[in-house]
Amino acid sequence: MHTSSSDQRTATYSATPRTRPTRKPDRAHYDEATVHAILDEEFVCHLGFIADGAPVVLPTLYARVGHRLYLHGSTGSRPQRSASDGLDVCVTVTITDGLVLARSAMNHSVNYRSVIAHGTAYRVTSPDELSTAYDAVIEQVVAGRSADCRMPNAKERAQTAILRLDLDEVSAKVRAGGVADDPEDMELPYWAGVVPLARTTAAPAQDPAQDPAITLPPYLRTEI
Amino acid sequence: MHTSSSDQRTATYSATPRTRPTRKPDRAHYDEATVHAILDEEFVCHLGFIADGAPVVLPTLYARVGHRLYLHGSTGSRPQRSASDGLDVCVTVTITDGLVLARSAMNHSVNYRSVIAHGTAYRVTSPDELSTAYDAVIEQVVAGRSADCRMPNAKERAQTAILRLDLDEVSAKVRAGGVADDPEDMELPYWAGVVPLARTTAAPAQDPAQDPAITLPPYLRTEI
Repeated sequence: MHTSSSDQRTATYSATPRTRPTRKPDRAHYDEATVHAILDEEFVCHLGFIADGAPVVLPTLYARVGHRLYLHGSTGSRPQRSASDGLDVCVTVTITDGLVLARSAMNHSVNYRSVIAHGTAYRVTSPDELSTAYDAVIEQVVAGRSADCRMPNAKERAQTAILRLDLDEVSAKVRAGGVADDPEDMELPYWAGVVPLARTTAAPAQDPAQDPAITLPPYLRTEI
Repeated sequence: MHTSSSDQRTATYSATPRTRPTRKPDRAHYDEATVHAILDEEFVCHLGFIADGAPVVLPTLYARVGHRLYLHGSTGSRPQRSASDGLDVCVTVTITDGLVLARSAMNHSVNYRSVIAHGTAYRVTSPDELSTAYDAVIEQVVAGRSADCRMPNAKERAQTAILRLDLDEVSAKVRAGGVADDPEDMELPYWAGVVPLARTTAAPAQDPAQDPAITLPPYLRTEI
């Protein structure tokens, strides 16, 4: 059971049977700083839910606002249609930081940071909260952008649906650092080490239909 | 219902009610070339299954071998323990290729390629198939590596579990290209365009405990 609530937050989420890993417990983290930093670095989560008795996992845009996630979808999509009365979900965000090449096949690994949140998601219906969520989803992708585009009109709002998931039952898992080979393997002749991975951006390509006098905004020069 | 089987493959997977998208059907692809190319570019999938009646999504290493996925785990992990009699899963692989910044908030999008596979996964028990799967998972991460490390011994094999999922009910979704703004928005003064995203590698960092005379293998110079 979790002990935190929106009125009584501490800086740590509480472990529950579902968020306690069955193995490698040293990789689990529950502090908000670790959990939120991972959530804030990405913008695509994998949203799991049950449809017709079977699991479904959809890549989904999201935003974190405080202790809450907003999950983006169209009003016609399966999870959004199902969520009026609450939809049990598992939201997973994964960032891969490196390939860990050990001397033994067994000790090969991946450096990664992931967050898994369990809970019941609800359709956002309040116009104010919807506005907050729309802005947050755009900001999650490119900070600074929500103030520099045309906001949705009434018709567009009616086509977009947002699910809200309160962050209560949530944990992070982090694997970092170098190779961990067994002592008896240390002299084996296989190259061992870490290949760092990162997501990078290339030069933004302006819409050819746009007047080139409209220059790249500052948030695309500094944030990306 | 799908019409392909392992004896009777065509170059296209068959659409089923689950793999037919509820929206943007033009983004769906069922041909093997598209599906396999996406699967072959990644090595982390998001594995969805049901545990105690609730959805769970775990980042999981995988490999594709022909029309089959192998999903890597420890014998103690939840999906591997549950899968002796078959475990209903949804396996999703997502690659993000770019941020699409439109003039309107509504038309913001992400260029991505994803594959979703539904089916029943089974624990691999045949020693030969396990060896194939171990090699394939390492090759999926770094092609060439499985022949250049110490293979698992009997004890290590006993700690590793592999699930097999036959690719039958599978589809790809692809969003590519530029901005798609509404005609009435084209003259708005907001910068519009695409910010390309890619996963890149930095210089491999050798394990400091290893003799530097062991130099970087060719597959790390050419494949990554």
